[in-house]
Amino acid sequence: MQSDSMQAVVITTPGGSEVLELREVRRPEPGPGEVRVRVAASALNRADILQRMGRYPVPEGYPKDIPGMEFAGTVDAVGEGVDEVREGDAVMGITGGGAYAEATVVPASTCVAVPRGMSLLDAGAIPEVFFTAFDAVILQEGLAAGETLLVHAVGSGVGTAALQLGRAWGATVIGTSRTAGKLERAAALGLEHAVLADEGWPERVGEITGGRGADVILDLVGGPYLAGNQKVLALRGRHIVVGVTGGSIAQVDLRALMGRRGSIRGTVLRARPLAEKVALTRAFVEDVLPHFEAGRMAPVVDRVFPAAEAAAAHAYMETNANFGKILLEW
Amino acid sequence: MQSDSMQAVVITTPGGSEVLELREVRRPEPGPGEVRVRVAASALNRADILQRMGRYPVPEGYPKDIPGMEFAGTVDAVGEGVDEVREGDAVMGITGGGAYAEATVVPASTCVAVPRGMSLLDAGAIPEVFFTAFDAVILQEGLAAGETLLVHAVGSGVGTAALQLGRAWGATVIGTSRTAGKLERAAALGLEHAVLADEGWPERVGEITGGRGADVILDLVGGPYLAGNQKVLALRGRHIVVGVTGGSIAQVDLRALMGRRGSIRGTVLRARPLAEKVALTRAFVEDVLPHFEAGRMAPVVDRVFPAAEAAAAHAYMETNANFGKILLEW
Repeated sequence: MQSDSMQAVVITTPGGSEVLELREVRRPEPGPGEVRVRVAASALNRADILQRMGRYPVPEGYPKDIPGMEFAGTVDAVGEGVDEVREGDAVMGITGGGAYAEATVVPASTCVAVPRGMSLLDAGAIPEVFFTAFDAVILQEGLAAGETLLVHAVGSGVGTAALQLGRAWGATVIGTSRTAGKLERAAALGLEHAVLADEGWPERVGEITGGRGADVILDLVGGPYLAGNQKVLALRGRHIVVGVTGGSIAQVDLRALMGRRGSIRGTVLRARPLAEKVALTRAFVEDVLPHFEAGRMAPVVDRVFPAAEAAAAHAYMETNANFGKILLEW
Repeated sequence: MQSDSMQAVVITTPGGSEVLELREVRRPEPGPGEVRVRVAASALNRADILQRMGRYPVPEGYPKDIPGMEFAGTVDAVGEGVDEVREGDAVMGITGGGAYAEATVVPASTCVAVPRGMSLLDAGAIPEVFFTAFDAVILQEGLAAGETLLVHAVGSGVGTAALQLGRAWGATVIGTSRTAGKLERAAALGLEHAVLADEGWPERVGEITGGRGADVILDLVGGPYLAGNQKVLALRGRHIVVGVTGGSIAQVDLRALMGRRGSIRGTVLRARPLAEKVALTRAFVEDVLPHFEAGRMAPVVDRVFPAAEAAAAHAYMETNANFGKILLEW
């Protein structure tokens, strides 16, 4: 008989990484249409840090004090009316919160089968960043073969995912980073044009594209890069912002945007209604999953921490030293 | 036998409205795929003022010194290989320039038949503003029935066109203007929610929409309204900028854009390649023209000037007193 409690990483009070503690909490039970996943790995996201500081509102229906927006693990309980997933299945997915725990309950319709031959730990590094990059660059901005994709912070989790998606979709990929070492690792992942951000990246992007600019820009930096992004946006270019780690406020030149017939879009996954998350999950299964199974894409794992060391994992993420994903293992 | 010269309104040197003069110029001949239109009416556009001042680059292949981005008239010469249009046809359309003239040469594929029962003069008030509003609001931003459309400068030519399109597409339309008299005239055209711009329009839009905001914003003002537009953009809202009469530079909050999952797009018609203009023309004929023929839409003519008084027409446009279009008649 299973215990009705479990371990979880809890935000004991809003604050620094030290407020994260392993605590005993109630083990959740799946309702109709839901499954419970015994979590093998959950990965860190920047939004977890904001949530820990009390600066990121958690969507309705998810635990307020247990972070964790993605999971990989094994289904260990199935709610009523679930037929797409069975007990024992290896699954991964995104969720609105609560994945920093031994077990998490999610709608069965948001579970994706772990690619054949991949460990649960590696799978834990896939969902949030590949969903985010796929949704932003491919589904929303319609990156097409032959176009140029500019990825800022290419060494981040989303950056490494976007780089792989861009190449798989036949685009020319340019990546920026402030760290030479990350650019080297991105080159090993297939990045064709690596640009050191602090050495005049807009001019470099202009040179690389022969003045044409980038058709799609995936931006995790925000404010400080907006002027540069406006300069390098190609005619009919699409600039999509998925993070504002550098700041949120900046000056925009609307006339320049008209001349380029360009767009700036902001997006976020977490707050979406379930139906949209299910639609995204299905598109991911159809269009992206086969690339993992064929070995053309791979999750990028920087470092694995035991779940009990979640505080250390957060502190590490805040140093910005990671290339790819930081995982918590149960 | 026709003379090989004609009258045209010429920008004699960059400057104020007084630099416009009626001059004798060479009558153009249609090449393959082109027709010559004997112009009955050409309407003014804000871009004509910028062009007159030497601040609007004219696209390649159009007269640099004859303004005029739209026309209505009668085909009086047909080039080789044209079969969609015949001599004597009443046509209207947009062009890259040169329509302030007794005759103008355009690709036959960009000509639209004047709606049955409409005068050539009225038809001259249709192309630029209805193409612009249709392209921006319907084709690019996909305004759907039941959505809310916010139109700034609703008394302008583009504003009055967008208002009619929004209603025909089943949207709730909110319009702003700085002039109470223009709002009254817009109400007579079917505007449901008229908002005086200087009396806290963002708060009023919030009240009208019950805090939801606008799904699509058609913006001719630009910079000074950006902060307000960000406030009233609905979840998944689309803000499209077709003019920056109030200024081009403004502060944007990218985090707010992410939270709304919103977009800001800039657009312009004139500089587009011919193939895109032809595609737009075809979509217009299919989706919008029937509304004119059924009497559900109508061009809005503010005032008609004889072509010889183009300078006075420009000076009048610069007072911003017009509601709808200002026409030059030949």
